[in-house]
Amino acid sequence: MKPSSLVRPSVLKLHAYVPGEQPKIKGLIKLNTNENPYPPSPKVLKALRDAVDGRLRLYPSPTAQRLREALAKLHRCEPANLIVGNGSDELLALATRAFVEPEGKSSRSAKARARVQYFTPSYSLYPVLADIHGAIRNPVSLLPDFAIPSLDELQHGRQWDFQAALTLVTTPNAPSGRGYSTRQLKELCTAQTGVVILDEAYVDFGEANALELALQLPNVLIARTFSKAYSLCFQRVGYFVGHPELIAALDKIRDSYNVNGLGQIAAVATLRDLPYYRKNLTRVKRTRAWLAKELAALGFDTLPSVTNFILTRPPVFPATEWLRRLRERKLLVRWFNYPEIRDRIRVTIGTQVEARALVTAARCVISASRKK
Amino acid sequence: MKPSSLVRPSVLKLHAYVPGEQPKIKGLIKLNTNENPYPPSPKVLKALRDAVDGRLRLYPSPTAQRLREALAKLHRCEPANLIVGNGSDELLALATRAFVEPEGKSSRSAKARARVQYFTPSYSLYPVLADIHGAIRNPVSLLPDFAIPSLDELQHGRQWDFQAALTLVTTPNAPSGRGYSTRQLKELCTAQTGVVILDEAYVDFGEANALELALQLPNVLIARTFSKAYSLCFQRVGYFVGHPELIAALDKIRDSYNVNGLGQIAAVATLRDLPYYRKNLTRVKRTRAWLAKELAALGFDTLPSVTNFILTRPPVFPATEWLRRLRERKLLVRWFNYPEIRDRIRVTIGTQVEARALVTAARCVISASRKK
Repeated sequence: MKPSSLVRPSVLKLHAYVPGEQPKIKGLIKLNTNENPYPPSPKVLKALRDAVDGRLRLYPSPTAQRLREALAKLHRCEPANLIVGNGSDELLALATRAFVEPEGKSSRSAKARARVQYFTPSYSLYPVLADIHGAIRNPVSLLPDFAIPSLDELQHGRQWDFQAALTLVTTPNAPSGRGYSTRQLKELCTAQTGVVILDEAYVDFGEANALELALQLPNVLIARTFSKAYSLCFQRVGYFVGHPELIAALDKIRDSYNVNGLGQIAAVATLRDLPYYRKNLTRVKRTRAWLAKELAALGFDTLPSVTNFILTRPPVFPATEWLRRLRERKLLVRWFNYPEIRDRIRVTIGTQVEARALVTAARCVISASRKK
Repeated sequence: MKPSSLVRPSVLKLHAYVPGEQPKIKGLIKLNTNENPYPPSPKVLKALRDAVDGRLRLYPSPTAQRLREALAKLHRCEPANLIVGNGSDELLALATRAFVEPEGKSSRSAKARARVQYFTPSYSLYPVLADIHGAIRNPVSLLPDFAIPSLDELQHGRQWDFQAALTLVTTPNAPSGRGYSTRQLKELCTAQTGVVILDEAYVDFGEANALELALQLPNVLIARTFSKAYSLCFQRVGYFVGHPELIAALDKIRDSYNVNGLGQIAAVATLRDLPYYRKNLTRVKRTRAWLAKELAALGFDTLPSVTNFILTRPPVFPATEWLRRLRERKLLVRWFNYPEIRDRIRVTIGTQVEARALVTAARCVISASRKK
């Protein structure tokens, strides 16, 4: 018996999602996976240490009850509008399974029901989720400046599907860092007959958010995470806000104890200390502005960003060469092999010290090139 | 737009898995969800407290690398034989998606490829996973004493499918507590042409295990968890052992950061302090023997158990009435509405003090009935 014969053919041919590297190199400055450079609040750390006791032998709340109650208060909605996941990645995967049919071979409308639609470039997980589920990917290009095309543009000359079962919008966009107006997002959501997920993983680093749409429109889910603005990657907590019936559908197909207990405790404690995080958000924004200015002086062409990263076109060398040369200097940034952004690198906004180290390294790379 | 129209019809009609209650009642003795009555090792708690620091802002190892290395050493296999999940529940769900086709309407062999097969009674999650995936459930009764039927018995007069894409065997069995010989399990696995998961969630409370089969046979996966014997329910860590090609298939479809970081750290620390857990296992076994004897004296008919729970037929009142009367006395046990075991209650083996409280309560219930 060949073990591979036991695996579904559709799974055998999958390419798994490749997460950014998490190398353990001493002294490395890690600006490749958009982690927050600041630790969680001391109050969160204390709440966690205090919770490390005999309770670990017990199952956590299967519904993340306290956390959902705290989030409901924060967002002025009901716990029934909320589902918590093992990171928002889990919830995005659940959404493909709850709202999208695996590919049928039949009519046009059946195709729409099997379609997972998203803009490119955006979060590279979306096509992977479509493939895993056996759904039809429908990638549609953003405009060259990473704006979302207008409804008129979407109607003409693009393969946009207003009936797609599921549309995923990273807003603000990753990897460009560009933000979108709630007005435009609302227009888009209203024009869709399927579910739209506005994936606001990075929203706290900007000024606006579209959360209201999840409470106004029956087909909109907002995805949020504690990983980025709230420095909790390690503990895997994300959530969706939306209509109770959409939430209930996701709830039915999740694992019953999907969110670890210490993650729930950390997230609740986070919501009790938001001023700490607001201060860090301000610091990230300040460093972002500083970094863009310094890089511009060195000849980098950086897109405006409302996130905790920038996408920038480096001078002198191709982007991949920069990746290599920065790594030699123990600075890890990220490069994506997508046609639209192959000439750019994505740099997470670190601390001011880390940003300074990056600018210094970039200056060295450039001046070394001149000496040859 | 009705939000329910956005949900897949197959999901709308699902009944979600109902986990055992996790009520917050002061003074309640919780013997309903087979949690370990003893806390994790002090060394595990220390390792966790020491790890609660700035690292929480970073993503955890996406492959649970250190944990898989430690497990490989323990089980004398390679890390490639191992996948770690957000509890073994996550891995069981992944297995349905990796190995089972959603229901096709065609030939006999296509049906086998869509079939999730399991014995009844066993872990009540299995049919839920089949339904979520749109697979065909194939429940087959255990013998009246909860033994697995012989191959000969399976071949005749039962709807057993030797070609089923996925067969799930809880071993030792839950909710009966009965164990199975590795010889019989090997016979069964060898006779199946699809994947067989031997779900050994409770195996550490018995004397034998079938782990060797996962390393000998190409179609066998062993499921293990840190929740039961290792007192880590709260942190959601389980794993599978098996052929690297089966493991690789599961690996492709899991969320990339599926296991929270503190869970990984706790599990690694657990493996470094196994003697602590062996001592607790001995205490659980001792209490189990004591409890069965005491209950027998009160007229309970208890099945032999190699797990951390017993399934027992209570005297005087129906099982549901016992459930209610014990709850009044702040003792929570579990009842399952399955035909085979409707007349029994399942009681988790607690500490000796908790077991004593149960016996005392049972004695009170019985003597109160005599006074009326």
